[in-house]
Amino acid sequence: MAVQTPEKSTGASVSLGPAAALSCRECGERFPLGPIFACEACFGPLEIAYNLPTGDPEGLRKQIEAGPKNIWRYAPLLPVPADVASKPSTNPGYTQLVKADRLARELGVTGSLHIKDDSGNPTHSFKDRVVAIAVEAARAFGFTTLSCSSTGNLAGAVGAAAARAGFRSCVFIPHDLEQGKVVMAAVYGGELVGIEGNYDDVNRFCSELIGDPLGEGWGFVNVNLRPYYGEGSKTLAYEICEQLGWELPDQLVIPIASGSQLTKIDKGLKELIALGLVEDKPYRIFGAQAAGCSPVSRAFQEGHDVVRPVKPDTIAKSLAIGNPADGPYVLDIARRTGGAVDDVDDAQIVDAIKLLARTEGIFAETAGGVTVGVTRKLIEKGLLDPSLTTVVLNTGDGLKTLDAVAPTTGPTATIRPSLDAFRDAGLG
Amino acid sequence: MAVQTPEKSTGASVSLGPAAALSCRECGERFPLGPIFACEACFGPLEIAYNLPTGDPEGLRKQIEAGPKNIWRYAPLLPVPADVASKPSTNPGYTQLVKADRLARELGVTGSLHIKDDSGNPTHSFKDRVVAIAVEAARAFGFTTLSCSSTGNLAGAVGAAAARAGFRSCVFIPHDLEQGKVVMAAVYGGELVGIEGNYDDVNRFCSELIGDPLGEGWGFVNVNLRPYYGEGSKTLAYEICEQLGWELPDQLVIPIASGSQLTKIDKGLKELIALGLVEDKPYRIFGAQAAGCSPVSRAFQEGHDVVRPVKPDTIAKSLAIGNPADGPYVLDIARRTGGAVDDVDDAQIVDAIKLLARTEGIFAETAGGVTVGVTRKLIEKGLLDPSLTTVVLNTGDGLKTLDAVAPTTGPTATIRPSLDAFRDAGLG
Repeated sequence: MAVQTPEKSTGASVSLGPAAALSCRECGERFPLGPIFACEACFGPLEIAYNLPTGDPEGLRKQIEAGPKNIWRYAPLLPVPADVASKPSTNPGYTQLVKADRLARELGVTGSLHIKDDSGNPTHSFKDRVVAIAVEAARAFGFTTLSCSSTGNLAGAVGAAAARAGFRSCVFIPHDLEQGKVVMAAVYGGELVGIEGNYDDVNRFCSELIGDPLGEGWGFVNVNLRPYYGEGSKTLAYEICEQLGWELPDQLVIPIASGSQLTKIDKGLKELIALGLVEDKPYRIFGAQAAGCSPVSRAFQEGHDVVRPVKPDTIAKSLAIGNPADGPYVLDIARRTGGAVDDVDDAQIVDAIKLLARTEGIFAETAGGVTVGVTRKLIEKGLLDPSLTTVVLNTGDGLKTLDAVAPTTGPTATIRPSLDAFRDAGLG
Repeated sequence: MAVQTPEKSTGASVSLGPAAALSCRECGERFPLGPIFACEACFGPLEIAYNLPTGDPEGLRKQIEAGPKNIWRYAPLLPVPADVASKPSTNPGYTQLVKADRLARELGVTGSLHIKDDSGNPTHSFKDRVVAIAVEAARAFGFTTLSCSSTGNLAGAVGAAAARAGFRSCVFIPHDLEQGKVVMAAVYGGELVGIEGNYDDVNRFCSELIGDPLGEGWGFVNVNLRPYYGEGSKTLAYEICEQLGWELPDQLVIPIASGSQLTKIDKGLKELIALGLVEDKPYRIFGAQAAGCSPVSRAFQEGHDVVRPVKPDTIAKSLAIGNPADGPYVLDIARRTGGAVDDVDDAQIVDAIKLLARTEGIFAETAGGVTVGVTRKLIEKGLLDPSLTTVVLNTGDGLKTLDAVAPTTGPTATIRPSLDAFRDAGLG
């Protein structure tokens, strides 16, 4: 396997559009663009610092609107080369923002309620967004193998993106995932390795591997490419605002796994304000967890700044990160914007999946049950204002978490093909 | 349950955009728009006759391009009201046309090869297109219950569309479908009835039901709303040409279940030519079946005009229609355009699913394995010209037919979370 080492291609030669440098979220120290993820000074997480195209919001808006119907329409705001749309990619994004009037009625929402439905992405989860950005970084740094630790959705997204773009892939998952996610991760022909342990064990293993010669030259999308990867979630903020007619929503309900997505959506909204693409006004960000893995929710309820790790036990496996890296940032954003973090149990998750399906024809994965369920709970608690514009994220697809609803979801009846049988079954 | 009878709302009052009347495909007899599907004179199938907007192709093209990013951009060419885009709908369509360079290399295609990937639709199959049109007809005719016979994909599409649009639904499926399709059909909260028999038995039962008082006032999307429903497949033709820069492809490979989709794609291409939206040039249409249900392929190979029904036995359940209603029309189109009809067996279907996944990151359902497998076979036989522009349809999603690939698709290895275990497994 001929791969370049990361060192070979870092530094000034890398051109990733408006991305100027990496900067530490804690101490502000800056580093040249490269496959690194932790500050050398303080070990804080690195994120992208940009030279964004300020000064002509109308021109920028027109440029975006004339772009492709996928995340590359926002290339001027992402760490990707200007010609990104011409490269082989799964081309995720620009998924539907569904005006959920029937769900609104059931929840007592009198304002407008919208579901941002990311099940419409190529592998049916929001992970296609972050992976597509990581692939561009991997190309820029000369990697030829893509890797990740995953609770399932990411594995499928990396497998598909690697296949399309011509990378080798090797992904790591907990050994006990849902069948749909395992098959989907494996079908793209890359290496798929089951790890005896939970996601946090898988993650720790990948951190070891990246420091070992065995992992040399590998692009781990959510480790050494994480600063790039994370930026993909900003596109959710961009799309929501564009689809609302270039307006900020009043309230957003976002699931929390590592917490990265929530923090990047906040970052994306702030960028749109700074660029003059939307009018500045307050918005509130709410975080949603499963009760069986709710360390951030617990810290929020208890008024703590520190997130105490837990051992996950929930059907919402895509959110089952017991030690969420961005937990403290999530707490800060929820508090700063006047939002909250809350959680629902497994039965409430299943109920919410069915509620969303029955009212809007959207079959969400368990993470979507978490956000819809938490939305209901926040309204009941008086924390979410039902008279305002609210956007609830569905980040994945019910077909990948069939086990959650299968025991209570099936045919009303099974009959012989005759009118008599139909009548006898009380169906007429 | 308060439903209007179909009779109440047929006739001159119905306004479905450019749809002018129903006309018999066999004898040409015309009827007012209504929920009927067979000619009273000769029992031939009815289809929509249009007043299409001729005379200003450039204006029409601009109108389409300024429309929503879904099938409603083609509302001027469909039997739907002009304000259709503002009504609650799953809003399917405008799915990706993927330039499949890596697959092309594997198949020895030197021209351009594209996959029209309809797994990107709301319920992940092309059925969302046809159902969305049927919903508009059901609204126009005052139906409040949507129904269908289905091999699975349609059941999910009807369930979702009914939920979104606020219809009651009652759908009928063979009792032995894949779990994913059953759960997806049931989760939207409508009635789901398993029928002890195969799809042809389910279909016969629905025909009985529609003639019985029990089924009065029901809109069966693929029976009494079939003339409207079928038109949804035209949007595949429109999108393919628009995505190719308003050009006809040279060759299309289309799966055959009832054969309706193939005939409507041909109809759509002819309309684009007649309207001056694409330059007139020859195109060839190829039909693809599974060997275990290949009545049209057999008739084509044997030079017959008549399609002899078969009892299906194939993993491609969404194509398992043993008595395809539009078989003779498919034979005619394949012969007239210089195409062909061919079939591949179950092992070839699985191989083709994996080939497409490995090269393009697209996880197709078995029907997509059929079209990709048949494409390979047609090239080997010299029937499909590898130097031309070819579009292959993937009409559904691999997550719904996991059983097809699951036995041969899984983790490369399962290990403890340690570098030693990784090394010992030969993965480093």
